Order: sequence, then C-alpha cells, then structure tokens
Amino acid sequence: MVIVMKPGAPEESINEVIAYVEAAGLDTHVSKGTETTIIGLIGDKSKLKYENLQIFDGVDKLVPVTEGYKLANKKFHPEPSTIPVGNTSIGPGHLTIMAGPCAVENEEQMMAVARAVKAAGANILRGGAYKPRTSPYSFQGLGEEGLKYMKEASEETGLATISEVISLEAVESAVKYVDMLQIGARNMQNFYLLKEVGRCGKPVLLKRGLASTIDEWLNAAEYIISEGNPDVVLCERGIRTYETATRNTLDISAVPVLKERTHLPVIVDPSHATGVRSYVAPLAKAAIACGADGLMIEVHNNPAKALSDGPQSLTFKQFEDLIAVLRPYAELEKREMH
Amino acid sequence: MVIVMKPGAPEESINEVIAYVEAAGLDTHVSKGTETTIIGLIGDKSKLKYENLQIFDGVDKLVPVTEGYKLANKKFHPEPSTIPVGNTSIGPGHLTIMAGPCAVENEEQMMAVARAVKAAGANILRGGAYKPRTSPYSFQGLGEEGLKYMKEASEETGLATISEVISLEAVESAVKYVDMLQIGARNMQNFYLLKEVGRCGKPVLLKRGLASTIDEWLNAAEYIISEGNPDVVLCERGIRTYETATRNTLDISAVPVLKERTHLPVIVDPSHATGVRSYVAPLAKAAIACGADGLMIEVHNNPAKALSDGPQSLTFKQFEDLIAVLRPYAELEKREMH
Amino acid sequence: MVIVMKPGAPEESINEVIAYVEAAGLDTHVSKGTETTIIGLIGDKSKLKYENLQIFDGVDKLVPVTEGYKLANKKFHPEPSTIPVGNTSIGPGHLTIMAGPCAVENEEQMMAVARAVKAAGANILRGGAYKPRTSPYSFQGLGEEGLKYMKEASEETGLATISEVISLEAVESAVKYVDMLQIGARNMQNFYLLKEVGRCGKPVLLKRGLASTIDEWLNAAEYIISEGNPDVVLCERGIRTYETATRNTLDISAVPVLKERTHLPVIVDPSHATGVRSYVAPLAKAAIACGADGLMIEVHNNPAKALSDGPQSLTFKQFEDLIAVLRPYAELEKREMH
Amino acid sequence: MVIVMKPGAPEESINEVIAYVEAAGLDTHVSKGTETTIIGLIGDKSKLKYENLQIFDGVDKLVPVTEGYKLANKKFHPEPSTIPVGNTSIGPGHLTIMAGPCAVENEEQMMAVARAVKAAGANILRGGAYKPRTSPYSFQGLGEEGLKYMKEASEETGLATISEVISLEAVESAVKYVDMLQIGARNMQNFYLLKEVGRCGKPVLLKRGLASTIDEWLNAAEYIISEGNPDVVLCERGIRTYETATRNTLDISAVPVLKERTHLPVIVDPSHATGVRSYVAPLAKAAIACGADGLMIEVHNNPAKALSDGPQSLTFKQFEDLIAVLRPYAELEKREMH
Repeated sequence: MVIVMKPGAPEESINEVIAYVEAAGLDTHVSKGTETTIIGLIGDKSKLKYENLQIFDGVDKLVPVTEGYKLANKKFHPEPSTIPVGNTSIGPGHLTIMAGPCAVENEEQMMAVARAVKAAGANILRGGAYKPRTSPYSFQGLGEEGLKYMKEASEETGLATISEVISLEAVESAVKYVDMLQIGARNMQNFYLLKEVGRCGKPVLLKRGLASTIDEWLNAAEYIISEGNPDVVLCERGIRTYETATRNTLDISAVPVLKERTHLPVIVDPSHATGVRSYVAPLAKAAIACGADGLMIEVHNNPAKALSDGPQSLTFKQFEDLIAVLRPYAELEKREMH
Repeated sequence: MVIVMKPGAPEESINEVIAYVEAAGLDTHVSKGTETTIIGLIGDKSKLKYENLQIFDGVDKLVPVTEGYKLANKKFHPEPSTIPVGNTSIGPGHLTIMAGPCAVENEEQMMAVARAVKAAGANILRGGAYKPRTSPYSFQGLGEEGLKYMKEASEETGLATISEVISLEAVESAVKYVDMLQIGARNMQNFYLLKEVGRCGKPVLLKRGLASTIDEWLNAAEYIISEGNPDVVLCERGIRTYETATRNTLDISAVPVLKERTHLPVIVDPSHATGVRSYVAPLAKAAIACGADGLMIEVHNNPAKALSDGPQSLTFKQFEDLIAVLRPYAELEKREMH
Repeated sequence: MVIVMKPGAPEESINEVIAYVEAAGLDTHVSKGTETTIIGLIGDKSKLKYENLQIFDGVDKLVPVTEGYKLANKKFHPEPSTIPVGNTSIGPGHLTIMAGPCAVENEEQMMAVARAVKAAGANILRGGAYKPRTSPYSFQGLGEEGLKYMKEASEETGLATISEVISLEAVESAVKYVDMLQIGARNMQNFYLLKEVGRCGKPVLLKRGLASTIDEWLNAAEYIISEGNPDVVLCERGIRTYETATRNTLDISAVPVLKERTHLPVIVDPSHATGVRSYVAPLAKAAIACGADGLMIEVHNNPAKALSDGPQSLTFKQFEDLIAVLRPYAELEKREMH
Repeated sequence: MVIVMKPGAPEESINEVIAYVEAAGLDTHVSKGTETTIIGLIGDKSKLKYENLQIFDGVDKLVPVTEGYKLANKKFHPEPSTIPVGNTSIGPGHLTIMAGPCAVENEEQMMAVARAVKAAGANILRGGAYKPRTSPYSFQGLGEEGLKYMKEASEETGLATISEVISLEAVESAVKYVDMLQIGARNMQNFYLLKEVGRCGKPVLLKRGLASTIDEWLNAAEYIISEGNPDVVLCERGIRTYETATRNTLDISAVPVLKERTHLPVIVDPSHATGVRSYVAPLAKAAIACGADGLMIEVHNNPAKALSDGPQSLTFKQFEDLIAVLRPYAELEKREMH
C-alpha cells in the first residue's frame, strides 16, 4: 500500500497519517518528491483499516500494490493446477469439453444428449436443474428431478457431470448427483453461496460475473478455496459492454491474463458469451488458440423446442462437426481430447 | 413480439414460422415490405418459446414490444405506490432519509448513530449485519447480534430500521428485528433470495445490480411481488462503467425513467454510488431535484475508524449540515421531511 | 510516479531500474517492504519515457501520482474561471442557458427559435451548421449558410451564439459568425482540431467524448489552453454504457468531480444525454442542484419535423415552462438567470 | 421500420401516425394485437424523418429493421472483398502481417525495423508519423519527415506501407509516401476526415472507435465508400469496458460478426488492444483461429527506449518467434503467409 499525499500537504497531516499507520503496528517509508510526498506501508496491512486513510486531511489517494487473493495467486503457487472431476480432470495437457443443454427438460432428452455428446468427444455433461431466469414467468428448472436424470445419463455413458447451484438446498441436492457444481455469473458475488460450495467436497466451476473484474473474480475463487476447497475452475462467459451485436462481449484476453495471475484452470463458454449459434465455432477455436483448458458448449436434441437458450444451442450434427474442427487446434496446443 | 425476416427470405421459411406460431395458439399478422417481411404475433406470447424462433431459417431478428414485468408495471397500476415501513412510509409527498453506518460494529456505535441521525432528521436507520465483501479476509459483519443492536436503537429513538440480507438464514433473523429488508446490488439477480423475501412479510429495498438494466431490475422486483409481497422500493446506487473517478457511475436518469415505467418508489444512494464523501451533498440535492422519493446516506460516529466504507461516510456534523441543505430542495418538490 | 517491483525481484533488476531513472536526471527513493520493493521518482518526470519502465525485468506496475494536465488543473489555479462569450459570460454566480435546435434548417426557423428562447430566458443561441451524423445518408447541415442565419438571429435578439465545428474549414467560417465554438463528443480527441480551436481566438465548449474519462477530457482541454486559448468550458452530455433506456448515461457525478479538479466552468446537456424529451426537465433541475454552471437544451419550432434529433427537442411552450421550473433551483444555488 | 404504439393508444393517434407516414410517400401495414398496435412502414424510409415519430402521441417506440449501410453490407455484396495494398493484398486466402513501431522516430530505426520485420515474414510496414496522444506534452510524431523514412524503408525492402492520418494536411502528405492510410480509433467518427480519405485514391484501414458499435463502424466505412473509395479494411483494436487488466478489451467476437455483416476484410491489433507484450502472441493466435484476415503488431528495435507504446512492442527476436508460432494456425485456416 502506498499513500499519495496532496501537493503541499502540511507536515502535520503527513505526521498524522504516519502516527495512525504506526499505531496499527506497521512501518512507514516516506519519500518526498518535488510536488508530492508518498508514504509506503511496510508490514501486514491486514492489521489496518487502510481504506479509511482516504479521509485523512492531506491524503490524495491510496494505491494498493499487492493482490487481495493469496490461495488463488500464481505468485504463491506457480505450477498450474489440475482439478479432478469424476473420472476426468481439467488442467494442462487436456482439452476438456463440457457439453449439454442449457436446461434439463426430461429424461429422454438427457439420455439422448448424453449419448450424442459422448460419441462426438465430450467428457463432461452439463445441464441446468436450477435455472436463474430474468423473468419469474420463465421456466425455472426441474430441480432435484433434473439432477437424477443427469446421474442416470452419467451412469450409462461414463461422462462426468456438472450442474449449476443457486441456493444451499440446491448444493445439498447437487452433491448427491453430479461431479462438479457450477456457480453462475449472477451468483459470482453471492458470498454466502461461495462459502457453501467451499465446504461441499466437490470441484466448482466459477463463472465470471457480468460486470466483474478479473481481480474480483479471483477474490471470489479465494472465498471457495479459503473454506477448504482447492478445486476451483474459472469460466469466462462474456462481460456486459455497450455492444449489442452479441449477447455479451467475450473477454478473450482474460485467458492469458488469468494464466499469469492464477494457477487455476480456465474454461471458455462461447455459447453464453455470444448467444448466437454461428459464432460458437470461431470463438471455440480462438479460445483453444489462446490457452484455454477447455470449453463449455450448449448442445440440444432440438434447439427450436429448447425451453431455454435455444438460439445458441448446437444440434448433435453441428456439435460433432465442431469437435472435428477443434481437434487440430488442440493438437497445436498439445492438449489431448477424448 | 415482432419477427423480422431476412431480406429475400423464401415463402417456405415465412410459412414455417407462421405454422410454428399458430401451432402454439397465437395469431400472426404478416406485413411484406419492399425489402423485408415482418410477422407480428397476436395473443398471449407466454404460450410460445418465442426465443427459439431466432434459429428458424430466414429469421433475422425478434423484437419484443411488451415488457416482461406486469405487477411492477405502471401501465397496469398507474398510481404511484406508498410503501409502509415501520412507523413511516415511502412514496409521494415524503422525502425519506435512510441513514446509518455501512456495518453495525457494536452496541454503542449503533445507539450513538441512531440518536444523531434521528436528531438531524432521518426517519429510517440503516446498518449492515451481514456484509457482502469482495475479499474473504474483510470484516463480514456481526450477524444476528448486529440486528439486535438495531432493534434496541429503534426502540429508543423510534426510527424504523433497514438491514441487508444475503441468505435464507439472514432473512429469518432480519424479519425478527428490523422493519425493512435490503437486497444488495450483488444479489439483485439472486432469484432464490428474491423469492424468499417475496414471502417474508416485510417491505424490501431492492438495490440495482452493478451491471443490470432498468428492465432486469424491474423483473427482479417482479420476482418479489409475484411471491405475494407488493412492498418493494427500488434503490439506484450507481452502475459500473469505464469511468474510475467515482467508484460507480450514478445513473441519475434512472429516476425519471423509473417514474415512467413503474409505480414503485425510488431511493438514491449517493454514498455507494461515488465512494467519496464530498460528492454526497451535490448528488443528494440532484436526486431530490429529479424526483427521488428518498435518500440513503452513510453516517458514522468516527469514519476514520469505520470497519467498512469509511471514506464515503459522513460525520454527525456533516450529516446535520446536509439535511439542512436538502430541506429547501424537498420543499420545491413538495416533499415533507421529518 | 511510483514503480512497484514484483515480489522477490532480484537486486540487479532493482538497480537496473534505478540506473535508468537516474540516467534521465531524476532522483529515486527506494522503499523495501516485506513483500515488495517500491521505487518513487523525484523530479521532472517529463524527462523520462517512463511508460517503458513497464518492460524492465522485475517491474510489476507503474503508478502515476500526478495529473497530466497543468493549465486546466485547479491545483495550480484554485479560483473558478469566468469565461466571456459575446455579451454574456459563463461561470460562478450565473446560470447560463444555451438553447436552440440541433441543426440550423433555414432562416425563418432560426429567427423564430431565437425570439422564442430569448423571450423565455436563454442567453446563448445554439444551432448546428456542420452536423456529424452516424450515417452518410443523413442530413449533414447547411454549412456557412447556417452560420449566417445564426448571426442574423443574434443581431436581432442580442443573444450570444454557439455552433459546432468539425474541420479547419468550419473553424474558419465559425469565427466570422458566432461567439463560441463547440467541439462535439466525437471530436473530443481529434487533437488536430483541438489545436486549431486553441488558436481561433473564440471561447470553446468542449463536449465530453462518449467513452472518455474525466482525465482524458481535461487533457483535451489542456490541448486547447496550451495553444494559447484559456477560454474553455466543459460540457457533460452523457457517456456510453450498457444501459439502453436512455440514449446515453448522464454522468451527473462528473459535475462535482470537475469542480474539484478544474477551474473551468461546466455545462450539462440533458437533451443529448437522454434523447428523450420528458427526461430533460428532471435532469436539468438535477444539474443545477449539483453545481452546473449552465445547461444546453434543444428547442425546436416543430420537433415533429426537425431534420435532426426531433424526439429530444422541446417546443417553445415546453421550454418556457422549463425555464420557469428552473428559476427557484438557480436561486437556491445563488445563480442569476436572465 | 416498425412503429410500436402504446397499449390502448386511441384510434386518432394511430391515424395521425399513418397520415404522417403516407404523406411522405410510404405505405403502412397495421397489425392490431391484444395489447398493442404495430404499424409497419413499407417503401423507402429515407423519405421520412422517421425518428420524429417518437414524439407523436401514443407512439411507444420505433424499431429499425434494416441497416443504415448499403455499400459495406454483405447482403448486397455477398462475396468477400480483396483489397490491394501496394504490391500485396488483404482478403481471403491471405494472412496479412502489418508490423512496425508505434511511432516513426528516425531514419535508422525505420530501416532497422523494416529489414527485421521483412525477414521475419511481415508484408506491410506500419509506423506513425502523426500521433494522436492524450496529453499535449507527449511526443506528437515527426510528420512528413517520418513518412519519407517509411518510403525509403519500403523502397529498400519491398514492403508495402501504412501510416495514420489525422487531418487533411496529413492525408495530402500520406498519399505521396505510403500505400495505405489508417484512420485511428479516436477519429472513427471524424466524418470530415472519413470523407477526405474517401477521395484520396488509396486503401484505408479503419480502426474501430473505443466506444463504437459494430453498426456505427460499418456506417463509418460507408462514409468512405460512398465518396468513391471501395478499398476499406476494418481493424478491431479493443473497446473500452470497465475491465482494467488490459488497456482495452479485445472484442474478438467482432470478427465473426463482421464476417456475417460485411464483405470488407478484418484485421486484429492485439498490441493496442491489450497494451501488454506478453498477451500479443495468444491473442494473435486467437484472431487467426476465428477468421481474421490479418494482424497488426507493434515491433520496435529497442522497446525500452520507444517514444510511444514501448510496453506493448515486441523485440525483433520476439516478433520472429511469433511469426513462427502463427504459421501452423494460418495453415489450418488455409491462409498464406509470406
């Protein structure tokens, strides 16, 4: 933490700041420039309600120099992590393909989709049983019944499974039926839920919030890990910007940024990022090319009749073609696919 | 809902769309332009998974023409609502002042703040007992103990009270101790929690999400109302933009926009919107001048020692001065203050 | 400027940075923390291509501590400026009302609008002769002919005048006919044009770019002033965000932020910010209440037939009513109106 | 264009709208729904100041159904264009590599960079002679002298050349010395300049504005083409969002979106998009993988001493390595490199 004083801040103001900091058990290092005095803080800054320094007379601004997250931080854990999920794992050397419908609709659908995505080359089956929807009048998901269909589909095909949780009750159900829990974008800063999945004993896919910075996202991961669950995977799914040509703006740069800042694996979801089927393939290729550890792709047996997110879902044939297109890109990046 | 076909879409594509819509029990109205054919849908569009139309051959785009929210919609409820909160109410003719610390820290603090804000002219006491914080290592609030201090402060001063809830457990506590529950920005689309407060029997202050549109916000209000709780008040507290001079960007235009779209009262929170104490007064005046039904202001007995959000908190003296400055603006808008 | 080194950066890296900085004639102040070393730069940092320090080994980030703008900076010019414009002036104690049509359409229109806005209480007549339009097929303005109509209208009514310039040629015309030149949002970083108006001898209204930070805006003002023209007025007209309920998002907080950072007057344009007529009055009141030095309002003799921006234009009667509504707010802020 | 009336709009309002539209020579198609009446417009809507319809009584909103750009529109020009630039060309089957320093600094530098990027595999040399800089105190470029060095470098190496123009004067110089003119992000809506380069007789690279939608960008291209210059290439270089981990947010989805909407080639600039050297390679691979026709990469003989944008510039060795890494991706996309 560096404290920048206003130009011409009087000696008393500078001394008052120093006294406050030192009273908290930290050391200071004062640097007087031609215009401005800067006070560096040395020691464990968690001892200090440092943000309050902002209202001391003569203080211009505070500049943090270290990140808030530790357990998710690559500085303290330089090797990339591999996260086990059911009978597979996510991390270096693999290209994970999560595929399935936005919402679990019924048993037949899940079995059909599971067989199709398995045959095409997916290794994790996705499906939403608890659906967060903008309007209370939209389909809200089948709940635990949906999770049971996922388990059946997993037993038949051998696919690992992932499903979103939105409440404690959903977490309690999900741990019984699926291999990985997903925190959706709208709950990325639902800290109560983050703590719950931090104690759930299953790996967690943490989607980025629509307006969350990469630092806030890593702090959200820190919530989960600091509760005892190190198995966190990040998923970039588009952020909200002024552009409306796509549903969200896929922040593809987040992939290399994350690779520098954290050891956690990174998945990209081009289906939710764009909301448009024809953009899924080019963006899936781009995601692999810039270092993603996997993809999450929406696939539906009959997109025109899907109860949720039909327009961005691929048909079985489109998904099969997509996987074929992706294989040489995975090879270039030395990542194995199933 | 209007369906816009691509230029030159063949007759079969147009007929396929019409057949799909009519099969769902709706009527269509086809309009052939020089370049483009447009299909209007007539009837209850909730019968249709209309979004899937986007992937029919020949469809260019779908254009919604009616809002998703009904109970929150001014079209169906033209008179502005007045929401009772404890011994006071929020709505036309009043200027509600909610004031208090970001976080409840201890009993003495709450009593001191309650007396001070009451004396200055506030009518609702705010205080956070369950704090959503970006980092898991920041102070997370006193929980139920904090709510008890709020109740005590209310009993002594006669102020109504409001506190944020972040989980079912927090809702269960809060209904016992405070008069109004707050849903924070990060939980605006925590639909599980919205449903819970929709059944809690207390009025709810719904803060706008950091990246939420006004329409999404009104849909979130619809979640609460559709569970049986009509007592919803909206709170604009800044949205996330590229500008960093203020913590968030106060979307002041949201006030007149909401006044056209909904009958629910609107509160403005200049403290969280800017994060800077010196901007609170000018923005509070602006909020009144453009039609807000009230303000939420952070006040602390000793901002420099506040456990959360010190820099944006006013001292007792600053708050007293602020209220004096606001009175003539409230008068111009024909709103009574305490 | 503060240089933050990476945790564990080796002594050689630190020394290399110091050597580079000192070779440029600056002093350094090194502060070794428990995790991180920080190097403060002392002296005239313009001697250094400091941004390049970012690629030195071991450097984590650079933190600027002083602003790039000097002449526009309140730190070096604490008194608010008053800017003369024709027979009037903009600054403390006044509330300037600029009003008129988006585009000058013909002589009769300008005379009619000028008489009406003068009678209602405006003191500066606006009108666009060179129109920047998104599509090349939209009306582009009357050019010099339009400026002549403005001059006539000014001669009859005594109103000062303002018009937008978009090229050197437009600047050369405008200085002959109007009292103040406007740089539109799209040209805020057209540095070539900024330099031209810096040499034009007339006051300049500098609108904020759609995606410009307040700091970039003040740097753009610095371009004009540093060419010898101190008469710059800033105009907030909405920024681009994800929200589409209004055409842009009026960043009302920019008013108090600017009042802290610069001595230049600040005008608010609620017409362009929202694009909707019914939001103009509430936002105009809000702008006055939070400290704006004036307003820019679109007024048209027949909005339904306006060649540009009809939907946000007020009729004569609406404008007259608006001015009446604004007077008590101006009084509260101790600002005189005509 | 579709006009959506408010629910319950009276017959007179509907008739007034119809009369206005038909008076302008268009036909209407009225569709009465259960809640809302919709009026479709049939015919050449340029005959109408249609936006003014927004202020007619009873009108809720206007919905455009066709794009404003025609000459840039793929609907009317389905084959992708190939744009000749000096002795090379940009378009299908090629992967164009533009490389060079942000700013031309002196003759030796340009010759050194030209030789190095030519040897590594670039086919167009970039270099800025007229630099748009946020602060008036930053280096503004060498002007015409810089262009002469580019011409020399081109003559020796055979590379085609591109340089940015920011004024009429710069256009007049640039056409004498370089093969392609660049319009920078800040000038994307400098319509005066767009018209100038529309008449300059050289191909134009049009960078996307920081806050411009894809539709506004294509309308800006339309300005150039409608002046008679069909040789326009688009360049995605990052948009402004709330995320600060990268200088801008590369909107990689713009590539497939543009491929659907326009026949013009698309270049991606990962250097400006991120501002960070280590992100250039992953994003360059991503750009190729999602269909870009080329890349613009900053390369400098000594990035630590660069007068502009040093931190994002590659050294010669880094650029050589990058090209080697990109070749197999270009092959997968069936694009030839030099």
